[in-house]
Amino acid sequence: MKFRILNDTFIEAVNNVNRALSTKTPMPILKSIKLDVTNEGIELTASDSNITIKQFIPAIQDNKEIIDIDEVGSAAVPGKLLLEVLRKANDKFVELTMFDEKIVHINFKNVNFALNCLDVREYPNINLVTTNTPLEIASEKLQEIIHQTVISVSTTESRPILTGVNLKIQNNVLTCVATDSYRLSQKTVSFEYDLPDINIVVPGKSLLELEKILDTAKGLVQIHITNNLISFTVGYITFQSRLLDGTYPETSRLIPKEFGLTQTYNRLELIDIVDRVSLLSREGATNIIKFDIYEEKTIISLDSPEIGKVVEEVQPVKQEGSLIRIGFNSKYLLDALKILNDEQVTIKFTGEVRPFVIQTEDDSIIQLILPVRIE
Amino acid sequence: MKFRILNDTFIEAVNNVNRALSTKTPMPILKSIKLDVTNEGIELTASDSNITIKQFIPAIQDNKEIIDIDEVGSAAVPGKLLLEVLRKANDKFVELTMFDEKIVHINFKNVNFALNCLDVREYPNINLVTTNTPLEIASEKLQEIIHQTVISVSTTESRPILTGVNLKIQNNVLTCVATDSYRLSQKTVSFEYDLPDINIVVPGKSLLELEKILDTAKGLVQIHITNNLISFTVGYITFQSRLLDGTYPETSRLIPKEFGLTQTYNRLELIDIVDRVSLLSREGATNIIKFDIYEEKTIISLDSPEIGKVVEEVQPVKQEGSLIRIGFNSKYLLDALKILNDEQVTIKFTGEVRPFVIQTEDDSIIQLILPVRIE
Repeated sequence: MKFRILNDTFIEAVNNVNRALSTKTPMPILKSIKLDVTNEGIELTASDSNITIKQFIPAIQDNKEIIDIDEVGSAAVPGKLLLEVLRKANDKFVELTMFDEKIVHINFKNVNFALNCLDVREYPNINLVTTNTPLEIASEKLQEIIHQTVISVSTTESRPILTGVNLKIQNNVLTCVATDSYRLSQKTVSFEYDLPDINIVVPGKSLLELEKILDTAKGLVQIHITNNLISFTVGYITFQSRLLDGTYPETSRLIPKEFGLTQTYNRLELIDIVDRVSLLSREGATNIIKFDIYEEKTIISLDSPEIGKVVEEVQPVKQEGSLIRIGFNSKYLLDALKILNDEQVTIKFTGEVRPFVIQTEDDSIIQLILPVRIE
Repeated sequence: MKFRILNDTFIEAVNNVNRALSTKTPMPILKSIKLDVTNEGIELTASDSNITIKQFIPAIQDNKEIIDIDEVGSAAVPGKLLLEVLRKANDKFVELTMFDEKIVHINFKNVNFALNCLDVREYPNINLVTTNTPLEIASEKLQEIIHQTVISVSTTESRPILTGVNLKIQNNVLTCVATDSYRLSQKTVSFEYDLPDINIVVPGKSLLELEKILDTAKGLVQIHITNNLISFTVGYITFQSRLLDGTYPETSRLIPKEFGLTQTYNRLELIDIVDRVSLLSREGATNIIKFDIYEEKTIISLDSPEIGKVVEEVQPVKQEGSLIRIGFNSKYLLDALKILNDEQVTIKFTGEVRPFVIQTEDDSIIQLILPVRIE
């Protein structure tokens, strides 16, 4: 294996696949990036056995030579170190050469790095799934779906199925739901072509990594789903994840349809207030913020017996319905407000101990929070 | 106690004294800032019992009213929380009012914070030391002295005296030395007026905090030294620290006077190289960088049996004397190169197992490193 490559292009690809690298693993080879060099280009593979990322770099792109391939071959190069070396390289091109099947030399200017490698033949064979009926979705749309739902996945392992996002297709409508059983996020997307029904659960962690990759990888994403795997391909990158085993709970009945009180606020102003009021909860035991909704104003407060108390008064933009006093975890509200987009946000209540929903003009996204009983 | 204060001024002062706050302390009151409000202004005090910082905010500054004092008095307000509340305050002024000697209300716009306080009478009485013969030094100069020496203080407690910087005045020359016994930093400053001889050791941690305060507090610094305390006053801020007990080792004989080989490099280029070569040491057990100095070039290398090897070739700007092969901790060289100022840097060697020094055109500062024996 020997090639010379445009360093900026190489860094970008290594950085992408590196997101799948294991930091702790019983298989040391999974700390490596597998490089497969053919006459067409280089395929990079990294995997922690739950997530796999592959990226192909073509030798020639837009009529420009990206890679000059001297000798084909494969290597398993330590991933983290490779990225660090490339980042410190003070030259436009770097040259990689394999020696004795166990050392990769990286050369640029007056510098030579010799990195010890593992035996590439020990690298597990990871195939990408394909199906005949891929889902197609714009990368920005996919990123929005993830961004607006993944906040509600459970971060504890007490019910493993809740650490994922449920993706369900019925009648060509995709419904994505996440809930940790204290709050819920739901996003729906309609498709204009026929899709097979599905009902799967994708690990939240996988989606968070995919979200980062979509920051730079833009375009149409092809999604293939099998019994236990999902893969997302955009351009030359494929991101594949295991699915979670088990049945996701039915959540549609949790979302109330009728409301006794709706309050509309300026979203950024409310973020500012909830953030400020939450100050007292950071060091204390309680995150419980209270909304006392009167005719003319809302009193938002947080009382932490050991630390102190904060009270803030705010005028809602619009108010309809009966008054209420309700308490809930301030972090949930802050998370929900931050991932919404519109200028105004509407909170819809049904009762003091009933779930309430947070919505904007974009009704494809619903955030739900369960209140706690207050004195 | 009741006053209304320009929030920006208040934040800056609270932020300054907060550097002395204890995070872990057997005395909970030391998590508070003591506010003493008189008709002239407010004095803020914070202390972790090793370091004390006091700052005075005058009611009127440059003919501008900073504070509107309604009622004099004192309070011990939780320091970290006070700073966070002030930072989130969405108004130009904030108003603080003491209630029942145990709650301080902070008001701005439609917001009211009520913070639980401790009894201010429990706050320890901390006096600032004064002497008749203060040392006077420009804040920028003092900051440079700290910056260029404190890198070499010991970070382990095996010899506590080495965790400080030794300040010695003899014949109106101040010599500042820090060493962890593997490297040494020495800075000298001459004074044009008569000074008493001193020989004290200031904790490195204290100097690092002082350095940060000097980022914004500029002007002439007055330094008072007693048997066990040192205080630095600049403008309205006083920073006081305990001194370390014990006798600092004599270091002047460690610095070689004659050299068999001197090498001059471009400083930034050498930083770049040492930083890159050190990549391989980050995950490995060894930080030992090697310089092989030949007639025409220097080979800088690092060999980490488990990880790999890196070799870089560089041309020194100037070279005089016999050739040498020497190995030492790359971090020490990097630290030393970074705190020097000039464009070029000269490394002066006496032998393969003898200390070498790093200097620039500014000969008031010497950095010394002990090499390790290599095969």
